[in-house]
Amino acid sequence: MDKPVLCILPQLHAQQLAEIRTLAAAYQVIEAEKDAADLAVPLKNIEVLLGWSKVLGPKIIAEPESKLRWIQAISAGVDYLDLEVLAKKHILLANASGVHSIPIAESVIGMLLCRYRGIQTAIIQQEHHTWNANIPYTELAGQKMLIIGTGHIGQQLASIAQGFAVSVTGVNHTGHAAPNFSQTIAMASIDQYLPMMDIVVNLLPGTLATQHFYNANLFAKMKNGVSFINVGRGATVKTNDLVQALQSGKIGFAGLDVFEEEPLPSDHPLWSMENVLLTPHIAGQAKHFKDRIYAIFKANLVSYLATGKLAQNQVNLSKGY
Amino acid sequence: MDKPVLCILPQLHAQQLAEIRTLAAAYQVIEAEKDAADLAVPLKNIEVLLGWSKVLGPKIIAEPESKLRWIQAISAGVDYLDLEVLAKKHILLANASGVHSIPIAESVIGMLLCRYRGIQTAIIQQEHHTWNANIPYTELAGQKMLIIGTGHIGQQLASIAQGFAVSVTGVNHTGHAAPNFSQTIAMASIDQYLPMMDIVVNLLPGTLATQHFYNANLFAKMKNGVSFINVGRGATVKTNDLVQALQSGKIGFAGLDVFEEEPLPSDHPLWSMENVLLTPHIAGQAKHFKDRIYAIFKANLVSYLATGKLAQNQVNLSKGY
Repeated sequence: MDKPVLCILPQLHAQQLAEIRTLAAAYQVIEAEKDAADLAVPLKNIEVLLGWSKVLGPKIIAEPESKLRWIQAISAGVDYLDLEVLAKKHILLANASGVHSIPIAESVIGMLLCRYRGIQTAIIQQEHHTWNANIPYTELAGQKMLIIGTGHIGQQLASIAQGFAVSVTGVNHTGHAAPNFSQTIAMASIDQYLPMMDIVVNLLPGTLATQHFYNANLFAKMKNGVSFINVGRGATVKTNDLVQALQSGKIGFAGLDVFEEEPLPSDHPLWSMENVLLTPHIAGQAKHFKDRIYAIFKANLVSYLATGKLAQNQVNLSKGY
Repeated sequence: MDKPVLCILPQLHAQQLAEIRTLAAAYQVIEAEKDAADLAVPLKNIEVLLGWSKVLGPKIIAEPESKLRWIQAISAGVDYLDLEVLAKKHILLANASGVHSIPIAESVIGMLLCRYRGIQTAIIQQEHHTWNANIPYTELAGQKMLIIGTGHIGQQLASIAQGFAVSVTGVNHTGHAAPNFSQTIAMASIDQYLPMMDIVVNLLPGTLATQHFYNANLFAKMKNGVSFINVGRGATVKTNDLVQALQSGKIGFAGLDVFEEEPLPSDHPLWSMENVLLTPHIAGQAKHFKDRIYAIFKANLVSYLATGKLAQNQVNLSKGY
């Protein structure tokens, strides 16, 4: 009988790969290109999949006799997977929550400082060799930040923001305490807090429940001139409502890394708005990505081989995160 | 006999002005435009000057019977004043060190994150409606930062940088300890530390001793690809040497707010270098400027009226800071 297969899609360090082969000696460990059309082994033999491929992934799951039992995603959000199918087939899913905390938190602060310290305008002026010190400015110090989502990224962002003397309020379902936040509140009471907040940062996962959470109705409750940062998921924002809130000045500044449609179409009005800073879904790009992803995978692999269960980062397939 | 005059050049809040008039009841308190050609009072009657004017300042000092006893500058650096003349005439000088700590520290972090998180490139792409996620990136976390100057600004920057898990070494004359730094070293031993540092931040004041401190010789001792940030004084850098170090890649990134010649001439090579971020001497722009400057001036005024001495921020006229 064929050995079960452990299929690795992201490029890992050679040493990490060797360690996997030692740990999972009963498995055939194969590496594959993310966009490979097919593999050298029968797809049905794959039991563990590290990473995801739009091409191969659905084929593997669709195999009638598929042995797939565990997918270790390398992203924090898993909205690109059909969670219902995974649940039906009893396939475990783990995400990479935590891997992107540092880079995303740094990108959020970077976007805010770009605006508040006049750096975005200076960069555009530099393109034209223009020296003009008459640039609007403010400071991050003393601002009130609302972080919607108090998981790994939110906690990291809260920690850094506190160092700037920013007061940080976190929002989660129940209002349960979370490290590094000055206070946490329940989603149900968000309306009372929105009018006081200078900065609103979205970290919500993309689920049916969060779709278009940020719409005209919610923007209307925010402080005039609020800064809105989206490094969560594009689908949580009703883009047309965001454009209108930016045009009216209700939202004073938007730092956007994710969009309903990606790439953002080149004729979209967001591109040319003076009070918008766009980055092309790069906030999560992590310097130590391989090491961080491998740490999660290895912990889960050891646990999976011993007990069939995952040690960390398991996604609740009905909640979606 | 005429009342002595207290002349105020920066615009203060009305309430602050009223308070000065109450505190200094024996004085005629006048406000003037920074670029006023002349005043309604005899220049020789001015005893206290808050702020500086290139037009009026030298005239006041040159008055044969000038009563000028104290200049309260509104900048941290005072290299635009003739300190020898002030010393000869026994005129006290105080600077505004501390007022710009928060904004400058935020600008330094903003410039670094702009580079490390790909935001500078994204802003330029946004100008052209270009979506391209293939942008070089790294993280601030884990970098080693050398801050040359451990005064107010350095301490504030060190505090914020620690929140990003940056290890921060401070440099001062003697290596004496300073708050918020992981370690401090003496200027005399800087050569041993330069090769290990990922980031070098200049906060040196502009004095004869610091002129062209940053030159080819010093750059050669730095780590290949180092990030160099100048928010101190332009004259501390030999600009041609900086350009060469940027061209060779010795310096991987420069974030520059101050220059030997300001405005930077529009045909200067620095404008169009991909690894340079220029801001037009705006890093010190402070949101709560009036309040912060007034706090220093008021403390000094109370002390000056009672004892003829200053309470804080007095400049050592032979050292220049």
